Amino acid sequence: MSKDQLIIFDTTLRDGEQSPGASMTRDEKVHIAKMLEKMRVDVIEAGFAIASPGDFAAVKAVAEAVKDSTICSLARANDADIDAAGEAIAPANSGRIHTFIATSPIHMKYKLRMEPDAVVERAVDAIKRASRYTDNIEFSCEDASRTEFDFMCRIIERVIDAGATTINIPDTVGYGEPNQYGDTMGRLIANIPNSDKAIFSVHCHNDLGLAVANSLSAVMQGARQVECTINGLGERAGNASLEELVMAIKTRHDLFNVQTNIDTTQIVPTSRLVSSITGFPVQPNKAIVGANAFAHESGIHQDGVLKHRETYEIMSAESVGWNTNRLVLGKHSGRAAFKARLEELGYGFEEQADINEVFARFKQLADKKHEIFDEDLHALMNENIDTEVINAYQLVYLDASSKTGEKPTAKLVINDFEGVEKSSEAEGSGTVDAAFKAIEAVVNSGCELTLYTVNAVTEGTDSIGGVTVRLEKNGHIVNGQGANTDIIVASAEAYLDALNLMKSGLLKAHPQHQGV
Amino acid sequence: MSKDQLIIFDTTLRDGEQSPGASMTRDEKVHIAKMLEKMRVDVIEAGFAIASPGDFAAVKAVAEAVKDSTICSLARANDADIDAAGEAIAPANSGRIHTFIATSPIHMKYKLRMEPDAVVERAVDAIKRASRYTDNIEFSCEDASRTEFDFMCRIIERVIDAGATTINIPDTVGYGEPNQYGDTMGRLIANIPNSDKAIFSVHCHNDLGLAVANSLSAVMQGARQVECTINGLGERAGNASLEELVMAIKTRHDLFNVQTNIDTTQIVPTSRLVSSITGFPVQPNKAIVGANAFAHESGIHQDGVLKHRETYEIMSAESVGWNTNRLVLGKHSGRAAFKARLEELGYGFEEQADINEVFARFKQLADKKHEIFDEDLHALMNENIDTEVINAYQLVYLDASSKTGEKPTAKLVINDFEGVEKSSEAEGSGTVDAAFKAIEAVVNSGCELTLYTVNAVTEGTDSIGGVTVRLEKNGHIVNGQGANTDIIVASAEAYLDALNLMKSGLLKAHPQHQGV
Repeated sequence: MSKDQLIIFDTTLRDGEQSPGASMTRDEKVHIAKMLEKMRVDVIEAGFAIASPGDFAAVKAVAEAVKDSTICSLARANDADIDAAGEAIAPANSGRIHTFIATSPIHMKYKLRMEPDAVVERAVDAIKRASRYTDNIEFSCEDASRTEFDFMCRIIERVIDAGATTINIPDTVGYGEPNQYGDTMGRLIANIPNSDKAIFSVHCHNDLGLAVANSLSAVMQGARQVECTINGLGERAGNASLEELVMAIKTRHDLFNVQTNIDTTQIVPTSRLVSSITGFPVQPNKAIVGANAFAHESGIHQDGVLKHRETYEIMSAESVGWNTNRLVLGKHSGRAAFKARLEELGYGFEEQADINEVFARFKQLADKKHEIFDEDLHALMNENIDTEVINAYQLVYLDASSKTGEKPTAKLVINDFEGVEKSSEAEGSGTVDAAFKAIEAVVNSGCELTLYTVNAVTEGTDSIGGVTVRLEKNGHIVNGQGANTDIIVASAEAYLDALNLMKSGLLKAHPQHQGV
Repeated sequence: MSKDQLIIFDTTLRDGEQSPGASMTRDEKVHIAKMLEKMRVDVIEAGFAIASPGDFAAVKAVAEAVKDSTICSLARANDADIDAAGEAIAPANSGRIHTFIATSPIHMKYKLRMEPDAVVERAVDAIKRASRYTDNIEFSCEDASRTEFDFMCRIIERVIDAGATTINIPDTVGYGEPNQYGDTMGRLIANIPNSDKAIFSVHCHNDLGLAVANSLSAVMQGARQVECTINGLGERAGNASLEELVMAIKTRHDLFNVQTNIDTTQIVPTSRLVSSITGFPVQPNKAIVGANAFAHESGIHQDGVLKHRETYEIMSAESVGWNTNRLVLGKHSGRAAFKARLEELGYGFEEQADINEVFARFKQLADKKHEIFDEDLHALMNENIDTEVINAYQLVYLDASSKTGEKPTAKLVINDFEGVEKSSEAEGSGTVDAAFKAIEAVVNSGCELTLYTVNAVTEGTDSIGGVTVRLEKNGHIVNGQGANTDIIVASAEAYLDALNLMKSGLLKAHPQHQGV
């Protein structure tokens, strides 16, 4: 019997970005989107076009850059939101508008201040408006888990009649339990007369660690789209993780009557890219993509070959892309090998000048470091990725010193806005602290440092170190990135990067909870 | 209707320790065990007594230190293993022996080279042997998911007759699916004639992200013990995470007919302690214990109070121990406040001299750093925790410098084995790299650096930084810890700590896959 197709809808760039501190620039979003396309994700939710000019530009840029995946924008159920979404996805080969409205009594009464009948009409109007732009329209019942079942059936029947092609049932608060959640999905599909005219979708949050199980239970009961994110990124405890969903379905194909289009060998490289861009580490014991996930794989494998294969295909480390990205470059690697590897990692170059500049920095790195791994290339590229950022502050010179019995000190020179070199010196409780204080002695930003993280290094400390600095000011949050073989330099660069993001208007408000 | 009691069996110290790189010293295990006791975990699996003299000593030390929880040791189904387990748990107020044997055809044939009848007799003999030491005996069917159902019923009936009081059904390979797994549990309990004489238990691995869902499904079908770990630590992708299981049951008490003894306010402090000791970070979007897990809690809460409480108690950040550990100490804090706080964090002092030494270091830290948080205290204590380690190498002096245009350098003086001061100097691709090279110029250890991690800092860079250095030599792995407000000093200390662990005989082989 042939299997149904399960649509993989990735919302790393929308719900994932709503994690506090996971904001991404337009270029970063495009880069992740291209990796998702390479992985053969069916639908990429690229953002919430109306939210800000930056969000609009990011959705549009993704729609222009990606050819094979459908590009989606979120929109509330009103004309302005839907028009913004429609315009942002216009360049896409295949575009989708994802509109939503709250359907629980409490939300309708207190948030929307609307009667249920008016909510139904608003939803229907939104679908009609969206159909001016595309016939690929998704509708979500916000707060579905607290929505009355009969009302949910009624509004869904009406929006399908109006042209909605995907119906999403989110577990907005993340408190669903698999049996109950799957049961609701099954009953919706059974009770809504025109349910065969739409694909039913799930969107689960992981507050109790059940997002993947809830999604799979709904798939068992007829859902044919799952909304998920790389590394399970997303609001609070995140969304269902793409890698776990896809590999559960693939590994237990004896139980699931569906298949996906995903090229699973792209899972680990994409996980690393998202981790590197957001600065969110992946814990070693994370399923599929954690450093220890396959630590005992060989033993199981040997045991397994004799009997296992009869019941299900074994999940191997290679099948999810471990070991496929260990190609090593070095100081004798040429420009062609370098460019080819970057393209395999999803980085494209439009101008010869761009590749020249990056190649020069690669050679500098190769002088310091024997073997260049893919992590190093990601770090090298991500440092460079914010082409739209005005580099207001630049590090010209740094002299940091830590000596037993003396306070750590940092002297530095930075270029300020007007290109004027300014120098300063500070003591601190550590060298990183001293460097940050020396920067603030010049800049006086008024920002608060809320997070300082160093990417784990697994290939010797001569590797390029990635540092993320999160600054907050008046509710605005930015993440600055720095990459250097020296941790003090990387830290100073990350701090300046964050200040530049704060200044350059790429700043973002605290990610707001949106919809689903 | 009163609810059944669900027994929480924590195996952080046994299965958790089997994660590559998560080895713990005896004192670290005791410290974690005391936190688990404070959290009111019912059973603590403290190790695998026969595995090594170090494991035996650790189980025994935990059995001596903990009063309120049952202390358990793993043992294969043979006399030597069971005798070692029995002796190690002898000091416990309440002790348990957990014995196991493989029951799948493939394991019986190729690993054990035994006929099924002989396996049953071996299991029964093991239970009888264990009953010389305790009447609290757990039996696990290794590789239960590939075991024939009828054979599983047969061996379980026999071991219950022989005196086993807990029967554990592990999903050893982590490929279970909730419906199927719960169904097996329900059928076992229904089909085994004397199943009412034992508690049935689950032990799930998270390879597909389903460990918690599989465990909960088995609880729905009658299991009354769950085996789990803090932060979901454990082999490969880890075990079911204690915090997710406990909070799912508590939050969805409308669905689960069980309750636990757990003091949930100890969850976050214990999570941090385990993360700090193992050097395994917790990702921000980890359910319950991740930094972002409650980032939107207030919004949900406000919405929720009106309607939510009718259906289920809302999970609040406070209920799992967020914000309970923000008490700040400073340079004016006295010895009594300092000691009281450490005791609240689970650190006890037997000798006045010990507290004097630690208090002196606290005062040094308070001179450098304005506010001292619990993280700082953990770092301070964990640096000091390996009292049994001979401090062969000690850092006497460090002078590290990073200057634009020059290679980073480190000069240092260390005390070697014989107490002789040796100095060296090295360049590196960064200051940390230079410091490590300078150390190796003296020590020449032949170790390979396989992991370098810096704990995320969330309170400003004047906080104490925790660095973990993992070294490997001939298959032996050690994790060294360093803590200092300066990242270079912390790195050098962590490197020396790892070298000392390697030298002092506390070294451990690659954790071996054991049993369940």
